[in-house]
Amino acid sequence: MKRYERVAQTLAQRIEQGLYRTGDRLPSIRALCHEQGVSVSTAQAAYRRLEETGQAEARPRSGYYALTRTTPGVLPRVTRPAQRPLDVSQWDQVLELVRGAPAEDRMLMLGRGIPDLEAATLRPLQRLLATLYRGVDARGLNYDNLAGSRELQRQIARLMAASSCLLHPDDILITTGCQEALSLSLRTLTSPGDVVAVDSPSFYGTMQILKAQGLKALEIPTDPRTGISLEALELALEQWPIRAIQLTPTCNNPLGYTMPESRKRDLVALAQRFDVAIIEDDIYGDLAFTSPRPRTIKSFDGDGRVLLCSAFSKTLVPGLRVGWVAPGRYRDQVLHMKYVSTGASATLPQRAVAEFVAQGYYERHLREMIRQYRCHRDVMIAWVERHFPPGTGISDPQGGFLLWLELPGAVDCVRLNERLAVEHLHIAPGSLFSASGKYRHCLRLNYASPLTARVEAGVRRVGEMVSELLS
Amino acid sequence: MKRYERVAQTLAQRIEQGLYRTGDRLPSIRALCHEQGVSVSTAQAAYRRLEETGQAEARPRSGYYALTRTTPGVLPRVTRPAQRPLDVSQWDQVLELVRGAPAEDRMLMLGRGIPDLEAATLRPLQRLLATLYRGVDARGLNYDNLAGSRELQRQIARLMAASSCLLHPDDILITTGCQEALSLSLRTLTSPGDVVAVDSPSFYGTMQILKAQGLKALEIPTDPRTGISLEALELALEQWPIRAIQLTPTCNNPLGYTMPESRKRDLVALAQRFDVAIIEDDIYGDLAFTSPRPRTIKSFDGDGRVLLCSAFSKTLVPGLRVGWVAPGRYRDQVLHMKYVSTGASATLPQRAVAEFVAQGYYERHLREMIRQYRCHRDVMIAWVERHFPPGTGISDPQGGFLLWLELPGAVDCVRLNERLAVEHLHIAPGSLFSASGKYRHCLRLNYASPLTARVEAGVRRVGEMVSELLS
Repeated sequence: MKRYERVAQTLAQRIEQGLYRTGDRLPSIRALCHEQGVSVSTAQAAYRRLEETGQAEARPRSGYYALTRTTPGVLPRVTRPAQRPLDVSQWDQVLELVRGAPAEDRMLMLGRGIPDLEAATLRPLQRLLATLYRGVDARGLNYDNLAGSRELQRQIARLMAASSCLLHPDDILITTGCQEALSLSLRTLTSPGDVVAVDSPSFYGTMQILKAQGLKALEIPTDPRTGISLEALELALEQWPIRAIQLTPTCNNPLGYTMPESRKRDLVALAQRFDVAIIEDDIYGDLAFTSPRPRTIKSFDGDGRVLLCSAFSKTLVPGLRVGWVAPGRYRDQVLHMKYVSTGASATLPQRAVAEFVAQGYYERHLREMIRQYRCHRDVMIAWVERHFPPGTGISDPQGGFLLWLELPGAVDCVRLNERLAVEHLHIAPGSLFSASGKYRHCLRLNYASPLTARVEAGVRRVGEMVSELLS
Repeated sequence: MKRYERVAQTLAQRIEQGLYRTGDRLPSIRALCHEQGVSVSTAQAAYRRLEETGQAEARPRSGYYALTRTTPGVLPRVTRPAQRPLDVSQWDQVLELVRGAPAEDRMLMLGRGIPDLEAATLRPLQRLLATLYRGVDARGLNYDNLAGSRELQRQIARLMAASSCLLHPDDILITTGCQEALSLSLRTLTSPGDVVAVDSPSFYGTMQILKAQGLKALEIPTDPRTGISLEALELALEQWPIRAIQLTPTCNNPLGYTMPESRKRDLVALAQRFDVAIIEDDIYGDLAFTSPRPRTIKSFDGDGRVLLCSAFSKTLVPGLRVGWVAPGRYRDQVLHMKYVSTGASATLPQRAVAEFVAQGYYERHLREMIRQYRCHRDVMIAWVERHFPPGTGISDPQGGFLLWLELPGAVDCVRLNERLAVEHLHIAPGSLFSASGKYRHCLRLNYASPLTARVEAGVRRVGEMVSELLS
């Protein structure tokens, strides 16, 4: 055993013995050198090893912090939404979350679905964009191909192959973010008045598409470990004329679970049996904490009934609005819908993302983000366990950067948010994630960005206020 | 009178006397110096004066060419579409035009709605984009405000004031191109099965929205000088349950007319009387050949029933996908529709366009493009008069860069296009501009880009082929 390995082992044992808990500061490099009688480079190597094993986290200009795999003591309960088709409401609340408040700079937005945009591994993307625009020719300023940039289609097909999802570049249409992919898919499959089955809780952006299209949402109970209940879905398919099943089976937003592969396979079989289409939102799929990343439902799709929707908004940056859809047998209709909705997508952002992937920057960035988000998940769970009232249900995310909490009592998180706003804090109330405003006692947190003392103070304050409202 | 003015006058007289016709090459600088016994700088000043008066056009590395205001000998006839609501067809033909053929580099695309992307006055835009991306911070990579960049909203409001259209920045929502503006407006106002009145011929992109939404188009007869027939529209409003009037009243695509102000005002009164909304497509409006630019219908809108749609795709570049809509009283519903369709628009392209306008580059670019397109209009009309069979109806565009031809016989322009493809030529067949595929004997040409010998040869070849098909 090398010297640095011995030092790492010593530290790991202390963490496992509980001498350091998640978020506690570990000895400085200097202190470690002194204590263990080793060189600076050996101490640094030991910490790098602990980072690799997920037992320590480096925070820039601050030092190393302990990490233990904190699994939540209490999970959220299996959801029990009303099992009948409902009109979607909640737009006012969604608007408040997404419109970008004028005071956002002063607000600590703990609930939005935004990745870490300060990551050093993003820098090549901005360099690529600057270079492309500096040297742009008439073609780069013109409309792009309607289906998308050929090179980006190719790179996406290559990426998806990593999860056994074999797509031809022609199967992929580039969109203006995942929101357009979902919107085109739903509009292609449905007419006003139709019923769409959704996992519940469900991403509010999709719910609002249902509202705008005059569709009804049939919310299906969901297990916080395994996802949508296939049993409940089957009953619903027998009972209602469901036109499409819309769900986020991998690194779910907001619950964080990844459906086991066998259940994904069973879901496809069920959809075949009832001849219904599946809209799969995979926007967080590349941020799964396991390698290789989990398979998509699309990868089990034998007859083109799955429309796979995704984007680079969570894995890279949202502000470029580069998304895509693989619409299976519905390709021609979705292409028409794309043409009438926005025409060709913006030209150079597609090229920049394609280059970023082709040159290996994307996979490097993903590795770094997955490491960071996995650490942050454990820290955030530890903070919630420390600062929220006992009995709070906490999700156990298998990827991504979102945490879902179920409060142990009838706290109204919309009202909570109003009180938090006075202190420049903001969470995403759970009612956004339901057609009918259920889950008002739940909330979503974001742990993407560096978990600074200000963030911990914010989480503590939310927890305190929840306790006040409960008492 | 200065010496250069005297030389300019001499040349102008020769042009007016018909010694030089539009498109004929004028004497070189050297020849003019020799002939008139003046210096090079005097000869150059004389040609600059002729450019200002619209009697000569400079072509880079080629010399000066004569221009006379060629008004077409024969205008297209007033259109007579079927005056009953129809389902929209023609998607296959539109797809062929817009999908971006693999062989496009070798094709001479004479029919697409693309501006000149090589203009020197565009360069500051690419510099702004490169600079913005090089220095981008997390905010620039994030989702933008849902309604749009504040600064861009402000600049658009300022631009529109030039045509007496008073908008508050909050009245304006930024979209992904004009196509999204039109799509959001139509989807906000209508439900499947509804009837929408359109000027006929009408932009195929809008017609395809009707198709995708399951709407019916009621095509209203249109005069190639004054636009939609208010008399026919009034009859239609009495007869059918029309939900919206969609039209392009300024620098119309494809017919090129600008509706007189009095008729724009009358149209608003008519819409008020029947309580129907107006969707005004103004995408070519800033390219009008008169100064100040013509007023929008929106500028006569007293009660917020006009949804004004536009973009920088024709005045600047299409590939950035920056458009906007001023939805009047429908603002909140259109904002919801925008959220569900694509979410916030891409962040930095909005900032770049706002800067381009704020620093005066936009107005400089417009001046240059208007001068160029006005010259090109006259040249293109002269070419068509020379190379097409007698009796060809030619539009008289009041702005923009599109020319509409009505052939003097039953030539099927879809078949014409198939024959042209073999010779790497492509026009936009008129049937694209009708719900039911009327106007097959019409076609649209583009005169935006430099009118090189290759373009003239293309136009001549199209004219020859038309003559062959007629005989």
